[in-house]
Amino acid sequence: MRSIDLNSDLGESFGAYTVGTDRKLMQYITSASVACGWHAGDPVVMKETVAAAKAHGIGIGAHPGYPDLMGFGRREMKLLPDEVYAYVLYQLGSLHAFTQAAGVHLQHLKPHGALYNQACKDDQLAGAICRAARDFDRDLIILAPYASAFRGAAEELDLPFAAEFFADRAYRPDGSLVPRKEAGAVIRDPALACRRVLQMAQEGTVECMDGTILSMRCASICVHGDNEAALETVRMIRSTLEANGISLRPMKELL
Amino acid sequence: MRSIDLNSDLGESFGAYTVGTDRKLMQYITSASVACGWHAGDPVVMKETVAAAKAHGIGIGAHPGYPDLMGFGRREMKLLPDEVYAYVLYQLGSLHAFTQAAGVHLQHLKPHGALYNQACKDDQLAGAICRAARDFDRDLIILAPYASAFRGAAEELDLPFAAEFFADRAYRPDGSLVPRKEAGAVIRDPALACRRVLQMAQEGTVECMDGTILSMRCASICVHGDNEAALETVRMIRSTLEANGISLRPMKELL
Amino acid sequence: MRSIDLNSDLGESFGAYTVGTDRKLMQYITSASVACGWHAGDPVVMKETVAAAKAHGIGIGAHPGYPDLMGFGRREMKLLPDEVYAYVLYQLGSLHAFTQAAGVHLQHLKPHGALYNQACKDDQLAGAICRAARDFDRDLIILAPYASAFRGAAEELDLPFAAEFFADRAYRPDGSLVPRKEAGAVIRDPALACRRVLQMAQEGTVECMDGTILSMRCASICVHGDNEAALETVRMIRSTLEANGISLRPMKELL
Amino acid sequence: MRSIDLNSDLGESFGAYTVGTDRKLMQYITSASVACGWHAGDPVVMKETVAAAKAHGIGIGAHPGYPDLMGFGRREMKLLPDEVYAYVLYQLGSLHAFTQAAGVHLQHLKPHGALYNQACKDDQLAGAICRAARDFDRDLIILAPYASAFRGAAEELDLPFAAEFFADRAYRPDGSLVPRKEAGAVIRDPALACRRVLQMAQEGTVECMDGTILSMRCASICVHGDNEAALETVRMIRSTLEANGISLRPMKELL
Repeated sequence: MRSIDLNSDLGESFGAYTVGTDRKLMQYITSASVACGWHAGDPVVMKETVAAAKAHGIGIGAHPGYPDLMGFGRREMKLLPDEVYAYVLYQLGSLHAFTQAAGVHLQHLKPHGALYNQACKDDQLAGAICRAARDFDRDLIILAPYASAFRGAAEELDLPFAAEFFADRAYRPDGSLVPRKEAGAVIRDPALACRRVLQMAQEGTVECMDGTILSMRCASICVHGDNEAALETVRMIRSTLEANGISLRPMKELL
Repeated sequence: MRSIDLNSDLGESFGAYTVGTDRKLMQYITSASVACGWHAGDPVVMKETVAAAKAHGIGIGAHPGYPDLMGFGRREMKLLPDEVYAYVLYQLGSLHAFTQAAGVHLQHLKPHGALYNQACKDDQLAGAICRAARDFDRDLIILAPYASAFRGAAEELDLPFAAEFFADRAYRPDGSLVPRKEAGAVIRDPALACRRVLQMAQEGTVECMDGTILSMRCASICVHGDNEAALETVRMIRSTLEANGISLRPMKELL
Repeated sequence: MRSIDLNSDLGESFGAYTVGTDRKLMQYITSASVACGWHAGDPVVMKETVAAAKAHGIGIGAHPGYPDLMGFGRREMKLLPDEVYAYVLYQLGSLHAFTQAAGVHLQHLKPHGALYNQACKDDQLAGAICRAARDFDRDLIILAPYASAFRGAAEELDLPFAAEFFADRAYRPDGSLVPRKEAGAVIRDPALACRRVLQMAQEGTVECMDGTILSMRCASICVHGDNEAALETVRMIRSTLEANGISLRPMKELL
Repeated sequence: MRSIDLNSDLGESFGAYTVGTDRKLMQYITSASVACGWHAGDPVVMKETVAAAKAHGIGIGAHPGYPDLMGFGRREMKLLPDEVYAYVLYQLGSLHAFTQAAGVHLQHLKPHGALYNQACKDDQLAGAICRAARDFDRDLIILAPYASAFRGAAEELDLPFAAEFFADRAYRPDGSLVPRKEAGAVIRDPALACRRVLQMAQEGTVECMDGTILSMRCASICVHGDNEAALETVRMIRSTLEANGISLRPMKELL
């Protein structure tokens, strides 16, 4: 592999509430998943985030979530697949209006928080989300874990799929993430995160928590830059990749 | 004039709350302005409304409103033009997702309630709304009163403009509506409403409250069918027009 | 048993959306659980509902729900007990403001929809809800099914508890309701509903779906009057009870 | 005057969004106006804010705002007085639930943002807000500018009234604030702010922008501590007052 994508979630401010380090993070990443006003984000924030991402040449994706601003979309809800289909389509369209107005393409779709996590393990939800993408734009890339229900759902609908690898999370041998509440689930050592990312980019493997070496496809590395320390890790990951001859490019140029 | 459009606001149900007589009204109208989830409507309702409007061959428009579900978008808010621009763009995109998925074009834009009323008299607001339309799709028709700030704003941006005439409202000599709280503002006699509509369709004139005969352009008649009595008026208006050799067609076929 | 309470959920209109037959229903019931603005209801509706309930001498309770207006509070959410505690306390206080202003007492607490259903089977949720009640007012009656986690939670906190019996639902031998999607779960025959209510009021028993005769305490009968047909059933239930010498009184007079 | 109150707006975080320096500010102030979940705040934040304020012996007030989270309650809305009455009563009750559960009294009411500003100049709105306070608790103190419609409204309803003086704002000879957009409207020099506060506390006068010396009553100084620099000003104001023999006490101890 000679090129890889670095993605992050952006545009999570809302009204008077400003969060994240979006502008700084944009110096390093190549794709951004932008909140669509339901779990975070608002139209003014979306407009500004799209403009800034365009200025940085970053691939832009929609990051729809549950209608739960108070919980930041992180709390499980039990919705019907038809509701999820309509909610995702709505949010896709809302973000697309801003990319359209800015004259850039909408590159990908990555659900947020609990919607993402529940759909990873639920064929019906993953299917509903992928149908919304297909009905809106057959070229939208589904960005999700390799070992998830999204891969099968995207394949079935003949949608482009980009697998993402989490730079700062431990994996289990079945390709799922070690839950955050377990010890060792989050990798806090930037150097270790960099080594894991490099191994994934070069060899397509990750060492699981139990020592198993797992092969996975990966088109994009997911990074978090919500504070200055996290931002420093992103910077290190990027420079490590480049120092090893791996160029960073938006996922649409890789598929 | 040989053809005219009949438009109405639809898709105003929300979650468990069902209002309006959408399905029946669709038998008579040729264009529908569909709520976009802010003052009314939700994604499931939007999907169903678009599907039904498509089945009836009705031209579909976006009907964005203020973020005020509790007030049904009818209460004045004082927003910055940049906020209005972003809010309208967001809602345009959200509805477009459903027309796109249904394989039909988005025909027009008509703001709702207090946003509509305030913008009619405010060049800055009308300009912000029209810029949102232009940046999203230069072919979107702006649907608004002839004597309003929208006409100038649409002209300036070279957007198609369709003037609408209210079948059930009295006019003042400056082309504005008599405020609802004044006596005689609302025309409740179906036969009188029909005569006024016919005069507008045939001669392009309306008799104002003070007797003045006012000339106005009119591409579309706005009707309300929120209850069975109103629905009957709509039926009468349609049959009156057809009996007089005036065909009913979506506004995009008229401009 | 010589007296029993008839309770119903009221005040579920929101803004321009009007639902239910509240005013008519108030002629028959003795207690009302009033929505608190999260899953339904708004402050203006709450004020009017409290005023009308007071005029009818009806005991007033708070009916808090999930922050999910779009789903009418009927969709499961996975919240922390501390979140549920705070959400219930907030809603309790909001309704209490209107009873306080009207000069009447807040009689009871009955959670709504998915919050109610989940808490019936979850000691942690039921405990969080009962703690909110206790911390606000030790005399608030918890209104819930006899066979539910609420009974134990109320007992543990020494709160008054009123068991409610559903006039129109089939029971299982463990005292739980037959899920709505199963055949026979909802009793649609008014005469049968009346016989079941009478048996519960007189003998404290219900015949389960499998024929088992189950003994349960019951201080209140829960009825639904959301349409004219349902309203007629409520009227029949009331007259049947009264014809059999059972008086109807708000639950606070029964405990 | 030997004692005065220092008040600030707190509890403006929401869900995952954390703002303000509440905990630090509580070291200096004597009264806190706590957001009630409409323009800012949520039930979990309200609970924590009330607990912290209680721990610091701070007088707690309700800080209700418009239903406009996206605009932080700072955008004008045109509501009916009856709507404002119900919205304020709702929010009063919601915060009272947390003070009740914490075993402390609700001390005062101070509306937020655009609701506050509009009501200062509108007898109908000020009257509606004061009626909500009176109907809920006749001992609630109305906290508002001396030269505002609130003073008359509170007097008329026989409610306690505490005038507040803004430490960092320039005044006009009619007692109103110089609008923020005018030069010199905001006083950024901490030393100057301290001198003005001291003059108000000792002599009950303020020097207006045009040099006029204006006499005003003042029971409370309003301070903002939303960033570290503002916090430093608050600290200086408190120490200046104490150095001049003026003790700081919650407003309920002063009236």
